[in-house]
This record gives sequence, C-alpha cells and structure tokens, in this order.
Amino acid sequence: MSTSAQIGVTGLAVMGRNLARNFARNGYTVALHNRTASRTHDLVAKFGGEGDFVPTETAEEFVAALERPRRLVIMVKAGDPTDAVIEEFAPLLEPGDMIVDGGNAHFADTRRRERALRERGIHFVGTGVSGGEEGALNGPSIMPGGSEESYAALGPMLEKISAKAKDGAPCVTHVGPDGAGHFVKMVHNGIEYADMQLIGEAYQLLRDVAGYSPAQIAGIFRKWNTGRLDSYLIEITAEVLSHVDAATGKPFVDVVVDEAGQKGTGRWTVQIALDLGVPVSGIAEAVFARSLSGHADLRAASKDLAGPTPTALSEPEAAAFADRVEQALYASKIVSYTQGFHEIAAGSEAYGWDIDLGAVASIWRGGCIIRAAFLDRITAAYDARPDLPSLLADKTFAGEIGAAQDDWRAVLVAATVEGVPAPGFAAALAYYDALRADRLPAALTQGQRDFFGAHTYRRTDRDGAFHTLWGGDRSEVPA
Amino acid sequence: MSTSAQIGVTGLAVMGRNLARNFARNGYTVALHNRTASRTHDLVAKFGGEGDFVPTETAEEFVAALERPRRLVIMVKAGDPTDAVIEEFAPLLEPGDMIVDGGNAHFADTRRRERALRERGIHFVGTGVSGGEEGALNGPSIMPGGSEESYAALGPMLEKISAKAKDGAPCVTHVGPDGAGHFVKMVHNGIEYADMQLIGEAYQLLRDVAGYSPAQIAGIFRKWNTGRLDSYLIEITAEVLSHVDAATGKPFVDVVVDEAGQKGTGRWTVQIALDLGVPVSGIAEAVFARSLSGHADLRAASKDLAGPTPTALSEPEAAAFADRVEQALYASKIVSYTQGFHEIAAGSEAYGWDIDLGAVASIWRGGCIIRAAFLDRITAAYDARPDLPSLLADKTFAGEIGAAQDDWRAVLVAATVEGVPAPGFAAALAYYDALRADRLPAALTQGQRDFFGAHTYRRTDRDGAFHTLWGGDRSEVPA
Repeated sequence: MSTSAQIGVTGLAVMGRNLARNFARNGYTVALHNRTASRTHDLVAKFGGEGDFVPTETAEEFVAALERPRRLVIMVKAGDPTDAVIEEFAPLLEPGDMIVDGGNAHFADTRRRERALRERGIHFVGTGVSGGEEGALNGPSIMPGGSEESYAALGPMLEKISAKAKDGAPCVTHVGPDGAGHFVKMVHNGIEYADMQLIGEAYQLLRDVAGYSPAQIAGIFRKWNTGRLDSYLIEITAEVLSHVDAATGKPFVDVVVDEAGQKGTGRWTVQIALDLGVPVSGIAEAVFARSLSGHADLRAASKDLAGPTPTALSEPEAAAFADRVEQALYASKIVSYTQGFHEIAAGSEAYGWDIDLGAVASIWRGGCIIRAAFLDRITAAYDARPDLPSLLADKTFAGEIGAAQDDWRAVLVAATVEGVPAPGFAAALAYYDALRADRLPAALTQGQRDFFGAHTYRRTDRDGAFHTLWGGDRSEVPA
Repeated sequence: MSTSAQIGVTGLAVMGRNLARNFARNGYTVALHNRTASRTHDLVAKFGGEGDFVPTETAEEFVAALERPRRLVIMVKAGDPTDAVIEEFAPLLEPGDMIVDGGNAHFADTRRRERALRERGIHFVGTGVSGGEEGALNGPSIMPGGSEESYAALGPMLEKISAKAKDGAPCVTHVGPDGAGHFVKMVHNGIEYADMQLIGEAYQLLRDVAGYSPAQIAGIFRKWNTGRLDSYLIEITAEVLSHVDAATGKPFVDVVVDEAGQKGTGRWTVQIALDLGVPVSGIAEAVFARSLSGHADLRAASKDLAGPTPTALSEPEAAAFADRVEQALYASKIVSYTQGFHEIAAGSEAYGWDIDLGAVASIWRGGCIIRAAFLDRITAAYDARPDLPSLLADKTFAGEIGAAQDDWRAVLVAATVEGVPAPGFAAALAYYDALRADRLPAALTQGQRDFFGAHTYRRTDRDGAFHTLWGGDRSEVPA
C-alpha cells in the first residue's frame, strides 16, 4: 500500500466524487474510500485518467494511504452519519492529523466535534463548500474553520482547487476557529434564499403589474446582468425564464408546480439570528415564502379571498416600471447583505471568531451560488473601515440606496395596490425605514410591558431603570 | 405537621406568592415552601389572613404536608433551576403524585421532564400561566398540559382560581399531553408580540402620518376599544399614551427610551414555527422590530440615510386616515392569529396532542395579556368547523378582511410613501396576498434550484419529479 496520498476523500456521492476529481486534476494524489467499495472503483474506472487516485477498501487501508499529517475529507450527510464516520476514523488517526468536514453541518455540531477531537489531538476543520456539484468539480467557494495550524497545512491545497475571482484571487480564506466556516456557509445560504426570493418578487411584479411575458422578463434580467446586479443568480434566472417547455410549448416556469423546497440552512440562519438578536427579516421572509408556497391546502382554502382589481400599464409605463423594479431589487439586496453580514459579525463576536468580513465577501466572488460583482464593493467597504457597524453605514451603499428609495417605494406601492405579494421588498424597506427612524414605537412597547408586567423602562433624560405605578397613583419609582 | 394541604407551592417570588394566595383565597389549604424560608414566613405574616397556609421549611416537611395524591406547584425560573427543583422533590414523591411547572418552560424541556417523571410514576404537568403578577393573584389564563389523569385531579382547582370569561366560563382547559400547555403558552406570547407590534405601528402612523399627539391617539384607541378591537392591550395602550411624565410635563411615551426588551418566548415561537414549516411572518417581524430597536449603534450609524419628504394631512384627512388604520390593524391582527393558530395546529399534529383550537381561543378570553372580544369569534369559527385549515378560510373572517383590504392597502401605501416603518402590517398583507395568489414565484425558485443544484421539480400537468439538463441540451428527464 502506497502512503503517498496528500489528501483522502471518504464519501463518494456526487459532491465527494467531484471534490476528489478536483484535487486530482490539480496534481494531488487522492486516496479514495467509500462505505460500498463499488463507488470507489467506479470513480477510478471512469475518471482515473484525470490524475493520481489511490483506491482503498477499508478504513485502515485508507488511513494508511495518507501522508502525515493526514488530511482526511469526509463528504457524508450532515448529522448522525457525520458523527458515525468521525467515530470510524478518529481512532485510526494520530495527533496532528486533520479531519475536514465538507458537508452542510450545523455550526454548533461543528463546535462540538472540534472540541472533542481537539482533546484527542486531531484537528477538525468544519468547511463550508458552495457551488453545488459543478463547483465541487471545477472550483467551489470554500469556507474552512478550524485551527490556524490546520489551515497552514490545508490552505494551499484548498486555494488550488477553489474557484478564482475575476482578479485571480482564490475563493478561500481561513474564516476562523472551530465552527466559523460552517456558520459563514449557513449565512451564505440564508442570503441565497433572500436573493432568490427578491428575484422571484421582481419577476412576479414584472409579470403581474407590468404585464410582461416570461421571455420578455428574461430579456430584462439579461440586461440587468450587464449592470450592478451582475450575478450568477440573475444570469440563471434569465435562462430559466427563457426556457420553453418542449412538451407543451408553454414557458417552462408556467408548467412547474409553484411549491418551493428547502433543505434547512435558510431556516438555521433565521433561528440563529434570533438567538443572536439580529434582525434578518429579509431572509426570514424568504424562508417563510417557501414554506407558505408548500401549504397547498391553505392556499386552496384562500383562493376566494378578496383582492384588488388589477390595472394595466401602457408600454412606456411598463418599461419605466421595470427600471424601478431594478432599483427596488438592488436596494432590497443591499438590505439582505446588510442583515447577513450583521449576523456574521454578531456570530463572530459571540463565539470569539474574529472573522474578517471583507475577506468573507471576497471569497464569495467566485464559485458559489451568490457570486456577484456586487461583492467587490462589500469587500471595499470593509477594507475601508473594518469596524463598519453596518453595510448601510458605508457611504457608497448609503448613497446608492438613498438614490434608489423613491423607485423602491413606488414599486412597493404598486405591489400593495395591485395585490402582488412582495414580502421581501417590504421587509427590506421597513428595515431601512426603521433603522433611520428618529423614534420607534419601541418606547410604547416598553410602556406596555411596564404596565402589564412591571418590566421597567429607561428614560431618555437620565440613567437608571424606572417603573410607573400604573395600578396606583401613576408616580414613577426607580426600579 | 398537618397533612391536609390540597396543594403546595414552592418558589415564592411574586408569581408563586400570588398563585399561592389565589389558591388560599379560593378556599384551598396551601402548603408553602421556598429555598430561603424567610419568604415563606413573610407571606404568612402579610397574607396569612387570606386563607389557610401551611408554611414549611424543608422539602420533606413540604411533601409531608400535602394530601395524596400530592399536587406540588413549582414556580421557579425556567431552565436549570426547574430541573434542580424537580430533582429535589421527585425522590420524595410517590406514584400518582403531580408536579405542576407553572414557569415559562420551553415545551421541549417539558416533554423531556414529563417522559422522565412518567417512568417514575409521577405526573408532570407543564402549565402555561398568563396574566402576570396581577393575573396570578386574581385569576390567570391557565394552559395545563400533561396526562388526563392529572387534569382530573387538578382541573377543578385550576378552574376555580382561573380568570373567568365574560360568559362566566373558566379560562382553563386541558390543552393536551406532555408539552402541549407550554407550547400553547409560547404561541400565546408570540401572538402578544405581534399584537403589540401592530399597535405600535398604528400609533406611529397616527403620529407621523396623521400628525396626532399621544393624547389624541389615546382617545382614538379608547374609541377603538369600544368596537371589534376591544382588548386589554388596546385599553392599556390608551392608558400609556395618555400618561404625562410628571418630571418633564411631556407625554410619557416621549421620555421612554425606544429600545424594547424581550424574554425569549417570542423568539421561540418563530424558531419552532421554522422547524414546523409554518410561516409566522407577523410574529417574526415583531421579534425583529424589538431587536432592531435595541441596536443603538446601528441606528445611530443610519441617521443620515435618505428618506422621503413628509406631507401633512388636513384634519378631515387625518380623521379618515385614523379609520383606515383601524381597518389595517384589525386585518393584520386577523393574520397574526391565523399564523399563530396555524402553528398550534402544526405542533398538535407533529406531537400528537389533538389540541382543540376553539378551546384555546376560549381560554384566552380572560386573564391573559391578549384577552380580547375577538377571541369569541375564533372559538365560533373552530366550533363551526373544527377542521378549518386556516382562520382565513372562515367565512366571517374572510368577509371582514376582504372588507378591510382597501383601507389596509391605503395605510401601507401611506407608510411606504411617508417612510414610516410598518413591518408588521406589510408582512401581514404580503401573507394575505401570497395565500390568495393564483401562482407564486416559487415556480421560478424551483427552476433555479434545479438549474444550480439538480434539486428537481414537479410539473402541473403530470405526476413525478423531473430535472432539466440545463448544462446539456435542456431536455427534461424523470428524476
């Protein structure tokens, strides 16, 4: 048995297989292992010519095939299967070896696993990998957590197999200790949910308010893709919308059942944001929109609810409206990213990860689903001011969103009046207006809470906590 | 030591003390226990005349003072303190005895505790208690979970000490097994968050759009409280808004710091809804609005963001606008309750609780924070059709919300144009419009997911799952 493999991959379903091929294509010798060995042999039979593979059948053989310190990548389902594989391999490893989990683990699980393995001298590197099957093969965006030491040993290899941004920079960085990588991958997915929801709302408004056909809307998205909205999701939206169903001759989007699936990372993003006290209303509305779409029974029972009578736009009005939708989409997108980066900053603070937010934006520029020209600007904003309290505090973004706000409002007025649901646009605008508000009704909330629960309040004119004797003479007492 | 106490309360902070007094005032002999005995003696010294108390100093004395089967109410902090008290008392109890947890436990903890104690033959009754200190003393709304057997032994006592609805019915029902009571209490609190947020938005709109003073708005709320919005929260809103700060002579609401606190049950309601796949966007926006209000740094950094130029309303316009706000508030409230009851139905289904939704609405009519005339109508809706898929499927509510929708939209248009944040109103309307939509952009979402992740989609015209070969000739294959 050779002991020369620089890296090993266990779990050779499509993501694992493609990642293994990616390493091999980049000149690394890759040990292969899978619970059922047929997959291993299948990979070598089909793709053996792409590079140096070392197929193995047992865990012992696999581990023996790796040079030390060992780099062992596990690509199995998140949850119990991941724990099972760790328990299979950890006893065979030696101090200094690395286990890289490239699945979509919950960062809290990653923290737990990292701690347990650290006690055994093993580096556990929870790693976000974005880009789907195609990215895994040709270059994903990679978000590794774990120790500095593990990154020193893994980083150069990850940089080689990762996507490259337009300026040539590899889309990988050492995000931070323990669960930082999986946390950032989670928020990436949450932002992806929001991006997709906003695109969906833009599409629906262009269709129902402006009266455009899917093919026409595809053209509008293609145009947008040449400007500041330039991104993978806008690009594929045009592809999907222009696609015609061969069986019926109808627009493809009209023959697809309008019930969206989801896998959990969007939901986690919102749940963790709630724990961290970070408002991520845009991401939440995206997750809720998907679950609402799937409640066929509720939707069927609601078909007869009253709505407004739609009005039709003239051709020039429709064209002007489309330009406004671009503004609304861009402004709402800025808010989504503001909320997502706020969550990363809050997670970094809560867990002591010291995450470089500009670097995170930078590694999302290639390989991943939300790759976009826009991300360069986020990096620039954080590079200019690393302690930026919010993306909206950046002068460039503040200027752009300010310039967009009239159109953004006009689009929401149209959605409201015409009865087209735009929960993502609406949540984003409400967030914007709440942040810039001089006073919020939270003061009334505090008054109510003090009234019914003696929860106390603070005063604007002096320090301390106070309670009003609401049931008595309504005098104020220090709390 | 007497052994005649019908019920015992341990944990004599204000909620426990008031609940003990409530039992005593209703003719029950109440054993008392507290970790520090001074509180026990203090209660007897101050309130001993209200009924029969049996003060005890040790856990053993306390348990010995109770008639069998024992009814032991614990009123301590949720979390570890609750587990600690259970571990202190459980070994002293005998099969058939009952431990009632009246704190704000997470229902998952209640399920765990119930299971563990059931194995030891002890009934664990996780019980929601709403109404704050005052409710605990004079009659709360009570939401007990646990076994049928425990309810047979406890129910009559709880019915006696509970609030009574206007028709005299006690505000208590056996909600369902194990964690059902705490689950329903959690959703109650989530709805309370939404109610308070919607009231806050109505207030802010009346202030910033209509130009009314807090005192004038108090008058408007008082008027509303005589109609279909008749409720405790509307009533106390008028009290808070009409209150003048003695120190400054300003409206009280203007001297309170506008950063809202929260204790966690609103957050849980959203997190659990996400797990259950239930869209609770109104409750989520309420939770987010509170957390946003507390981010003083972000708000300070956002003060200069561009907003619209406000316009002023004439007196008759303002009055007409106030009427529209009532419609918007009522319609949004219907949506909040629709979402909350959907979550209860989903929880009941997921955990096999068989919760009677009409009975839940019924026991919220008195004692608790969200008590409202409105709840009678929800009970009527579920009584008329226990399998109602959604409150919006009820003809009466559908009719009312349909009649309100024009004004609801007009209020949101004003909020949008004037730059007053109304995330709760907006989320509610978007939910309404999404539910009644013929087609949702979820079809586009599915197309995108199939494009980048081969997640497949379903077709409207035949069964099965399909995938389009987006990277190839774009033909469709069965998945």
